[in-house]
Amino acid sequence: MPVAADAALELTAYAWAPSGARGLVRDLRVRWLLEEMEATYRTRLLDLRHMPRADVLPDQPFGQVPAMAEGEVRMFESGAICLHLAERSDALMPRDPVRRARVLSWSIAALNSVEPPIFYLQCVALFDRDRPGAADLQPAAEERVRHRLGQLADALGERPWLVGDFTVADVLMVAVLRQLKARGLLDGVPTLAAYVARGEARPAFQRALADHLADFIAD
Amino acid sequence: MPVAADAALELTAYAWAPSGARGLVRDLRVRWLLEEMEATYRTRLLDLRHMPRADVLPDQPFGQVPAMAEGEVRMFESGAICLHLAERSDALMPRDPVRRARVLSWSIAALNSVEPPIFYLQCVALFDRDRPGAADLQPAAEERVRHRLGQLADALGERPWLVGDFTVADVLMVAVLRQLKARGLLDGVPTLAAYVARGEARPAFQRALADHLADFIAD
Repeated sequence: MPVAADAALELTAYAWAPSGARGLVRDLRVRWLLEEMEATYRTRLLDLRHMPRADVLPDQPFGQVPAMAEGEVRMFESGAICLHLAERSDALMPRDPVRRARVLSWSIAALNSVEPPIFYLQCVALFDRDRPGAADLQPAAEERVRHRLGQLADALGERPWLVGDFTVADVLMVAVLRQLKARGLLDGVPTLAAYVARGEARPAFQRALADHLADFIAD
Repeated sequence: MPVAADAALELTAYAWAPSGARGLVRDLRVRWLLEEMEATYRTRLLDLRHMPRADVLPDQPFGQVPAMAEGEVRMFESGAICLHLAERSDALMPRDPVRRARVLSWSIAALNSVEPPIFYLQCVALFDRDRPGAADLQPAAEERVRHRLGQLADALGERPWLVGDFTVADVLMVAVLRQLKARGLLDGVPTLAAYVARGEARPAFQRALADHLADFIAD
C-alpha cells in the first residue's frame, strides 16, 4: 500500500472537511499521482476546526492542504507537487521533448485556463452564495464554464487522454473537471463526462480516493 | 535585441487589443522571461478582429495568445512556456533541489492560488459587468482578492523576491499582480506594491513591455 507510516514523503491533508468537499480536497490530486507511480507516502492530518491555520500550516502560505515534505525539500500547491513528482516517471512526464512540452502545456491549462472559470462559478454558487448579486450572476458564471468545456472537448476529440498515454496532465485535468460533477455541468458534454469517468475508473484513482476518504473523521 | 526576425523561437501575440488590455496580454509574461535570459524570439501577430479564432490559433485550444513554436516543440499557456524556457537558466530556475522545489511551488501559486480570485474579480467587474448581479457582487470578489494579497504579503515579508534571487516565480507572480494596478487594489498592500514596482523596474521587463506595446496597431 502506498500509504506507509515510515515513508520518506509526507503529505498534509485535512482530518475533517464538510461532506461536500470530501473527495475534492486537493491532497487527492497528489495521492492519485503517487498511486500511479506506486510510490509510498505518509499523511499528516490537520483538524482546522481546533487549530488556528497559521500555527498548523507553516509550510503553506494560503492555509491550504496539501503541503509536501521529503528530506530537505518542502513544497506547497498540489499542481507544483504533482509536476515535481511526475519527473520520476517516464510515463507520467515523458522524456521526449515534444511530448513533454505538450504535457506541461496541458497541465498548466488545467490549472490556469480551466480551473479559474470553475473557481468563479464556485464563488458565485457556493462560497459567496449568500452575498448580494450571487444568485443573479450564476447563469453568467455557468456560461463561462460551459464555453471552456466546449473548447476542451473539441481539443480532446476522440483521444482517450490529452497527450498520448495517461500523464500527469490527465491527473490534473480530470481532478479539475471532477469539481463540476455535483453541479451536473459535465452531463451536457459527453466527451468530457467520458474522459472524467475513464480517469476515475483507474485503479490508482480508486485507491487514492479510498485513502483520502478514510482519513476524514466522522462528521 | 531579443526580437529578431530570424530567431528560432516564435511567439504569437495580438496585433490589436483593447487599450485597457495592452500591457497585460499574456505574451508579455513570456517576452519578459526571454529578455531576462537574453534569448532571441520572433513574433507572429494575430488580428482577431479580422479572422475567426479557430482558423488562426490552431495551436491554442482556448483561442488565446501566446502559443510558442521552436523546432518540433509546440506549446501553449504562458505559464507552461515560462516554466519550460526557464530550465535553460540556472538563475531563473535553480538547479539546487530545495530552491527549485520552492520556485516551482511559488510559480504554481501565482497561477492557481493568486490568479483565480483575480479572475473572479475581473469577471464580476469587467467581463460580466453588464450581467445581473455583477455590480452587487463586486465587494465580495474584492474581499477575496484582498484576503489572498494579505496572505501573500505576509509570506513575502521583507524579502525582495519569492525565493532568494529573482526567478521565474517572480516573473509569473509580478505579472499576475500587475492586473490589479488599474483597480488600485495594490495600494492597500505596500509590501506587494513595492514588489511589483521592483519587478517592473527591471530593464528586462521594460524592454519586454516596450516591444509588447509596439506590436499593437493603432486603436
